[in-house]
Amino acid sequence: MYQTLKHKPLAEVRAAIRAGQYCSHTAGLGKGFLQANLAIMPEAYALDFMRYCQRNPKPCPLSGVSDTGNPMMTTMGGQIDIRTDVPAYNIYRDGRLAGSVTDIRDLWQDDFVAFALGCSFTFEHALQQAGIALWHIDNDKTVPMYRSGIDTVPAGPFRGKMVVSMRAIPEDRVAEAVEISRRFPLAHGAPVHWGDPAGLGITDLARPDWGDPVPVPEGHVPVFWACGVTPQVALEAASMPICITHKPGHMLISDIPEDAEVPILRPQDQHTSQTQQGETHDTHA
Amino acid sequence: MYQTLKHKPLAEVRAAIRAGQYCSHTAGLGKGFLQANLAIMPEAYALDFMRYCQRNPKPCPLSGVSDTGNPMMTTMGGQIDIRTDVPAYNIYRDGRLAGSVTDIRDLWQDDFVAFALGCSFTFEHALQQAGIALWHIDNDKTVPMYRSGIDTVPAGPFRGKMVVSMRAIPEDRVAEAVEISRRFPLAHGAPVHWGDPAGLGITDLARPDWGDPVPVPEGHVPVFWACGVTPQVALEAASMPICITHKPGHMLISDIPEDAEVPILRPQDQHTSQTQQGETHDTHA
Repeated sequence: MYQTLKHKPLAEVRAAIRAGQYCSHTAGLGKGFLQANLAIMPEAYALDFMRYCQRNPKPCPLSGVSDTGNPMMTTMGGQIDIRTDVPAYNIYRDGRLAGSVTDIRDLWQDDFVAFALGCSFTFEHALQQAGIALWHIDNDKTVPMYRSGIDTVPAGPFRGKMVVSMRAIPEDRVAEAVEISRRFPLAHGAPVHWGDPAGLGITDLARPDWGDPVPVPEGHVPVFWACGVTPQVALEAASMPICITHKPGHMLISDIPEDAEVPILRPQDQHTSQTQQGETHDTHA
Repeated sequence: MYQTLKHKPLAEVRAAIRAGQYCSHTAGLGKGFLQANLAIMPEAYALDFMRYCQRNPKPCPLSGVSDTGNPMMTTMGGQIDIRTDVPAYNIYRDGRLAGSVTDIRDLWQDDFVAFALGCSFTFEHALQQAGIALWHIDNDKTVPMYRSGIDTVPAGPFRGKMVVSMRAIPEDRVAEAVEISRRFPLAHGAPVHWGDPAGLGITDLARPDWGDPVPVPEGHVPVFWACGVTPQVALEAASMPICITHKPGHMLISDIPEDAEVPILRPQDQHTSQTQQGETHDTHA
């Protein structure tokens, strides 16, 4: 089904996900639209989690927050029902993974708040379009991720080390890769570090904490971006009675264009499904 | 005193403000550091206000949020006490201005949350440095502000039209002004509109809703930026029992460099008062 959906417009992809017909990863689907990590939690924790994201915008770029108890995530898309429109969900209880499901209608609570956070797919597409090859994608592996020595700025029960992802970039294209990814603050923005992994407290590139090891060939530099696993670690640390996330790689595909300057749909735009709040101008001025 | 403080380092400016010796506007003070609008409210309203800012990032660029009840705004500066470090405060009760004070130590509540929002000073400095003159500054006037026809995206009790500020820019420098201000997402970013004011539902440029009218000479284009009065209007609409803001023009001067990519100080950096969470790199790599 993946090969079919890959060439379908967003509306068809979303319909297949909503109907439970497609429950797999979303890489390469709904091209051109922002994909997002998901975290759903009781309102009692929501202000602290939002402060955590605000204080750590590179690992936790907030792109949407639902109203309390409302599963329609109106600022991410005209008709997104957050209970059905993600291919697969992880359920955490007391900070531990308690199961995975493809629909959370029966788990939804009136006090739930849903958070959508930007992910690395966006800048990876832009790097590839600029002709910068990404080994993990070309070789169908998961990007290597490392627990760095950098503490995030805590908020309430949310805390932990910043997790970073690593991509090996040709020496003469590092500056370009930095500038390209800087354009996408909703997708972790510019790298947090490049060069010697020791600068981040990472001792062995060959042993990532998550994902697969990748080669760093001669003439390449390891470049590290803040990673969306960081909030995942913070959610586990908070040990909430219940918390629901997307299953890694199984993202929410939004109606927000990938290159949006600001992360929201305006209500008056939502029927079009493709516009954003950005600048307008009168060319006849 | 303003003329003296204008040439003093940030630490001296802040000490004078904290001691109640300086209670006037902060334009041009503490050069190079981000200045911010302030909104303090009971925690019961904080999640909705934070959602409002997240959904309207151009008029409401959130640069810092305090922990509940803690007046030390650690992510804005090493030693910022939000009760004393703003030159003057406005007190609102039930959505109406109830008075102005220079210190809020006796008004502080255990459930207060303080929000700092970026302001236009930052991009105005950058425009001036690029040689783009700003008439209202050169003529010691307040920038003209207009209630546009654009609805902000509401959150809980917070809602209202987007307020915009207008600066007349020479036709051949509009594109440059757009690009310069786009670099400062914490200071409203790129304009929301340029050219015909009717595009924003504004009928008469000569009659701003706030501030002073300014001329738009032949060969100049009116350029409109999202304005920090927008959250002010939303705060009034919410009609909270108590809410405290800065007095217009009397801003919080933070320890965050004006050109910071992300709006926070990391705890480990705070003793230096001048570093930010940004990228690092190893030049020996």
